[in-house]
Amino acid sequence: MSDLLAQLAHRIGDTHVLTDPQTIQPYLTDWRKRYRGKALAVLRPASTAEVAAIVRLCHDAGVSMVPQGGNTSLCGASVPDTLGNAVVISLSRLRQIRQVDPVNQTLTAEAGCTLVEVQVAAAQQQRLFPLSLASEGSCQIGGNLSTNAGGVQVLRYGNMRELTLGLEVVLPDGQIWDGLRGLRKDNTGYDLKHCFIGAEGTLGIITAATLKLFPRPLQQCTAWVALSGPEDALQLLGQLQQRFSDRLTAFELVSDVCLQLVTQHIPGSRSPLEAPSPWYALLELSDGAPDDRLAGDLLATLAESPVQDAAIAQSEQQARALWLLRESISEAQRLDGPSIKHDIALPVSAIPAFLQDTAALLQHAFPGVRLQVFGHLGDGNLHYNLSHTRPGNVDLFDDEAQANRIVYDQVAHYRGSISAEHGIGQLKRDTLPHYKSALELKLMHQLKASLDPKGLMNPGKVLV
Amino acid sequence: MSDLLAQLAHRIGDTHVLTDPQTIQPYLTDWRKRYRGKALAVLRPASTAEVAAIVRLCHDAGVSMVPQGGNTSLCGASVPDTLGNAVVISLSRLRQIRQVDPVNQTLTAEAGCTLVEVQVAAAQQQRLFPLSLASEGSCQIGGNLSTNAGGVQVLRYGNMRELTLGLEVVLPDGQIWDGLRGLRKDNTGYDLKHCFIGAEGTLGIITAATLKLFPRPLQQCTAWVALSGPEDALQLLGQLQQRFSDRLTAFELVSDVCLQLVTQHIPGSRSPLEAPSPWYALLELSDGAPDDRLAGDLLATLAESPVQDAAIAQSEQQARALWLLRESISEAQRLDGPSIKHDIALPVSAIPAFLQDTAALLQHAFPGVRLQVFGHLGDGNLHYNLSHTRPGNVDLFDDEAQANRIVYDQVAHYRGSISAEHGIGQLKRDTLPHYKSALELKLMHQLKASLDPKGLMNPGKVLV
Repeated sequence: MSDLLAQLAHRIGDTHVLTDPQTIQPYLTDWRKRYRGKALAVLRPASTAEVAAIVRLCHDAGVSMVPQGGNTSLCGASVPDTLGNAVVISLSRLRQIRQVDPVNQTLTAEAGCTLVEVQVAAAQQQRLFPLSLASEGSCQIGGNLSTNAGGVQVLRYGNMRELTLGLEVVLPDGQIWDGLRGLRKDNTGYDLKHCFIGAEGTLGIITAATLKLFPRPLQQCTAWVALSGPEDALQLLGQLQQRFSDRLTAFELVSDVCLQLVTQHIPGSRSPLEAPSPWYALLELSDGAPDDRLAGDLLATLAESPVQDAAIAQSEQQARALWLLRESISEAQRLDGPSIKHDIALPVSAIPAFLQDTAALLQHAFPGVRLQVFGHLGDGNLHYNLSHTRPGNVDLFDDEAQANRIVYDQVAHYRGSISAEHGIGQLKRDTLPHYKSALELKLMHQLKASLDPKGLMNPGKVLV
Repeated sequence: MSDLLAQLAHRIGDTHVLTDPQTIQPYLTDWRKRYRGKALAVLRPASTAEVAAIVRLCHDAGVSMVPQGGNTSLCGASVPDTLGNAVVISLSRLRQIRQVDPVNQTLTAEAGCTLVEVQVAAAQQQRLFPLSLASEGSCQIGGNLSTNAGGVQVLRYGNMRELTLGLEVVLPDGQIWDGLRGLRKDNTGYDLKHCFIGAEGTLGIITAATLKLFPRPLQQCTAWVALSGPEDALQLLGQLQQRFSDRLTAFELVSDVCLQLVTQHIPGSRSPLEAPSPWYALLELSDGAPDDRLAGDLLATLAESPVQDAAIAQSEQQARALWLLRESISEAQRLDGPSIKHDIALPVSAIPAFLQDTAALLQHAFPGVRLQVFGHLGDGNLHYNLSHTRPGNVDLFDDEAQANRIVYDQVAHYRGSISAEHGIGQLKRDTLPHYKSALELKLMHQLKASLDPKGLMNPGKVLV
């Protein structure tokens, strides 16, 4: 094995083959600190050619490889297992913005660029790269692609998959596939990029991507509205989509339980409305017009909607304060104590019934359970978390398996997804076979065997 | 073989196993009448279960299968080869609209529904299914999916791939994969539907799909504008996208040569503008607002653009007349005589240089050549046709190989696509290896071998 390390060091430089236990510790531990793995070494190539060279060496030596971006996976997808026979390949040094083409509205970035770096490069050309996530300062484009990242603007702009026109991938044997195209239409055979997007590094290593850009909106209007229930939220969503179409750039659902956690735990936060309401929506409209009609048009629509009260931001500062409430929910939950988390998707039309049925089942199983529900209603994506399965919220995780089973069985009943935007990784790997058909799993294994016959890429992730 | 036919007839009924030479002739000849194939029989199953049953019988007997929808392929993808050892599987009897969910904005249709039937089913629920093609009255959803169909509204709504949330597929061995999901987010492993979309029936038979719907626009504004050149068209496109974002639902480029062909050959057609101009754009804005601001907002934008003259439709009838000019170009070309056709895509920013360079190369090779250029500029998709390579337009197709080589080499130089929306089929199968890397072709063959190891699905299409 020291032979291999020497060859790797020869190829990318001594200082980029890390083996010191303390130095490599951060690469082996996931962001949530649920998984602590082991590795032969952490490799830090600086270019696609270097990635290809080290992948070929590892491939020929039969050594497993764990690609890693910003290591912000919420499912343990980016850290190695505990066997210690894999190398971690960090893409952090591949951070060139290779091209920005404002007329074609495309940007080509290397995998190690952070999401913020891509946003900034687009903004410098008066363009928008719309993907936006809590971890955008540290997560990297390669990871965003490998998990098909979502976020708050999917409603308007789509997931990472929809934002991608082309890819460059180092295949498991070290060959480089140059699929970097900036085309809106291309029907010349199988669209291979879709194999690698969302594959969590199990089929190859994405080294660069050509991404879609958009014009930058010139005005936005942000509002926080009170709703009596999820049905009213759906009615409002439909009215806004009819009236504003894709100018509706976000529609977030927040339960009063979540808002209370925020105002209780986050200093300086307060409810935007006087009277509490069981549910709220945070909505955002965006327009490229230089006028200021958006707020008036929104008010007219709200007047005909089931909204009971509304606060419309009068300044960018007020808009940011509304968004901060939404973005503080995860932190407020953390400060409040442990919770069992689910990142699920449902057909939008099924959400009211799902919420009602599932709450009843959980209350029956865990009398007094507290549901902390929020999410991207426009995408049917709920963060469906629960705590207090027992008085005082003790021994919560002893109830996790049972709670997961109740929630995921309900998700399956409504033909939903047990992972809307976080992926599978290690966390849901053993759960997936319960909710995916045997045939679909078999097809996934066939694809894996076809592209990675030696099974070297990110072993133990996604597939059992 | 008569054994197999008897088994097939037993499964789907005598009257749906067609073998009479005259009866099956339409199934064996492509729409352009370039290809005339042979087949053992034409099979007309009525349900997914019947498709699965006959595919299993054919699979076990080692008999090739050619899936066929409306048989409107422009590349000969939907007719069998001349060996006569394949069966054609027509999906025309799978024509149920299984579900319309206006709140989730989804519709589930079987493969044999025509595109118009899907549009109508959506409209009945006050929703829009935006795919729109010249052949929409006869082309079928299964074929639209298998060719990843495009059309005039891709700019706003995307290709068929982007309009699809879930698929049901009969695999080459007769197993049914139920991937019919109506979810906007689902990150639970490899997204298998993308393997089958655009695969032209070479990996399995799509039997149903869950498609995205949209709110129906309440107002549209259609305009025909004069432009001095492609650079100005790009500038206008950028201005409209900045101002109207996705309310810009179409942006079509038309050369004066094409407009002249239309006014010359199509009775009742006339130029919308008094003075001729070398180029025109046909543009359409759509909005869900019940006001009538769109035309005024467009005028304000055009006033600051390089547009030299404009006709804005004042009624739906006038709008239809403008669209008819655009839609008559193909027919006008046909009436004018033969032409060599190319369906290409380029990065939008490369189009002015491509047009200039390529015209010069073609004029050099074929002095006096006439270029008939039009297309979906917003998608970078040009229909780049030429005629009169020799005086009197004689022996045109003797020059086809040389003309293709010039055009496609230029497309490759600008990193474009030799098939933007029509696919590969038989027509471009032997051309593809010249313009696709060996590695990408190898990956395509690997995927084919993985999903269709016996090579029975639509042989001789896409891949050599």
